[in-house]
Amino acid sequence: MKLYPKITLVGAGPGDADLISLKGLKALAMANVVLYDALINDELLTYAPAHALRVYVGKRANRHAYSQQEINEMMVAYARSQGHVVRLKGGDPFVFGRGGEELEYAAKHFIPTAVVPGISSSIALAGLQGIPLTYRGVSESFWVITGSTTTGVIAKDIYTAAKTDATVVVLMGLNKLTEITEIYRQEGRGNLPVAIIQNGSLPDEKIALGTMDTIEAEAGDQQIGAPAVIIIGEVVGKHERFTSRQRRAVAI
Amino acid sequence: MKLYPKITLVGAGPGDADLISLKGLKALAMANVVLYDALINDELLTYAPAHALRVYVGKRANRHAYSQQEINEMMVAYARSQGHVVRLKGGDPFVFGRGGEELEYAAKHFIPTAVVPGISSSIALAGLQGIPLTYRGVSESFWVITGSTTTGVIAKDIYTAAKTDATVVVLMGLNKLTEITEIYRQEGRGNLPVAIIQNGSLPDEKIALGTMDTIEAEAGDQQIGAPAVIIIGEVVGKHERFTSRQRRAVAI
Repeated sequence: MKLYPKITLVGAGPGDADLISLKGLKALAMANVVLYDALINDELLTYAPAHALRVYVGKRANRHAYSQQEINEMMVAYARSQGHVVRLKGGDPFVFGRGGEELEYAAKHFIPTAVVPGISSSIALAGLQGIPLTYRGVSESFWVITGSTTTGVIAKDIYTAAKTDATVVVLMGLNKLTEITEIYRQEGRGNLPVAIIQNGSLPDEKIALGTMDTIEAEAGDQQIGAPAVIIIGEVVGKHERFTSRQRRAVAI
Repeated sequence: MKLYPKITLVGAGPGDADLISLKGLKALAMANVVLYDALINDELLTYAPAHALRVYVGKRANRHAYSQQEINEMMVAYARSQGHVVRLKGGDPFVFGRGGEELEYAAKHFIPTAVVPGISSSIALAGLQGIPLTYRGVSESFWVITGSTTTGVIAKDIYTAAKTDATVVVLMGLNKLTEITEIYRQEGRGNLPVAIIQNGSLPDEKIALGTMDTIEAEAGDQQIGAPAVIIIGEVVGKHERFTSRQRRAVAI
């Protein structure tokens, strides 16, 4: 039987297995190999055929099971030996997912590729909590920034973002929370609403709500840990449990 | 039979019917009424039960079939008279979708609500073209901005964005293309890559690729029209058909 090597990058969504797209499910059903990341919902693996290889290539924070180079090499080697490889990635493949590097590596090795976008936690987790990322007259844009840059320092975009009215979403930034709040407070914005959502879309989802002045204490009280998204902006004040009282508590 | 009024905001994705989530399909299958927008793929309506009412409330650019207030009132009236209303919205409900206003209106009228996020064209359409919104060492953030503000003027965030290395995605901004390119050129960034994608994820998808200096002519040549997303940043240079030649053509 002739093999047709192919690599499909599939966005698995933010956690809830039902938040994968129909197109993603169809790709999984045609997979000979599934290479999946650490934060992938196990239920999704049941959509691949029984004969398909399921290979964990997870990396989580700084604990890599495989380096990106090793993952690239595995993708191409499996495509050549097994045919259709589904590279199943959390959220959307191109939102801090290194999907671009994977596409380039595949192209360099003449393996055809396809992309199935995913629901990104950067957008979805706010919405699931009833926080609108944009709202007429309140926020006309949103800015998604990584808290974890290549060099380990905080993305310099945060400094610019703190001067704008954009809703700001920080991914992988929980360990930079102190720096983030300081940057905003130096702009005189200690009163700005912030939410931190852990395990968004999953049964053990948690949220901390506060302002730049109070959010660290709130996150501590709620024992919020990674993975978490940080949502910053006046739109957070629209969460049903965000009361003006939270803001006044600081103003006093 | 007792009626249970409920409103579920469902993100339909960017156009391709297979880019709705499994959760969105399940909500549609439980709908008594579907209120759907102009850019919704008709195929999605087939997932609602045969008995369900399908009501077009479309608005497209400035041609509104119904005002937002009328849509809000219809949602609540149908929920009370029919039970479960699915409000089917293009992309994600909270990315310039007025989902926040609809949730608030429902809450004010004591109708329970649920949210099913969608794949937003702001993220997905670049990825489907092989343009990574973020890329290590190139772009550590992306900023999504509306080209169509309440007042009709260009969002002031564009002026700030033009000074940053963020990948910028402008939705509903095609009629502001001249202003956008002027803003970037005044920052000395005429050489910055830009892509415009029309009808992304659909069979008649079109793309124009160029730089701030050339994109208007390119979009004209390709006869690009609305709805379109504009993607701005060095990552656009990673598109397989974006050659360094496009940039040099201007430098000469």
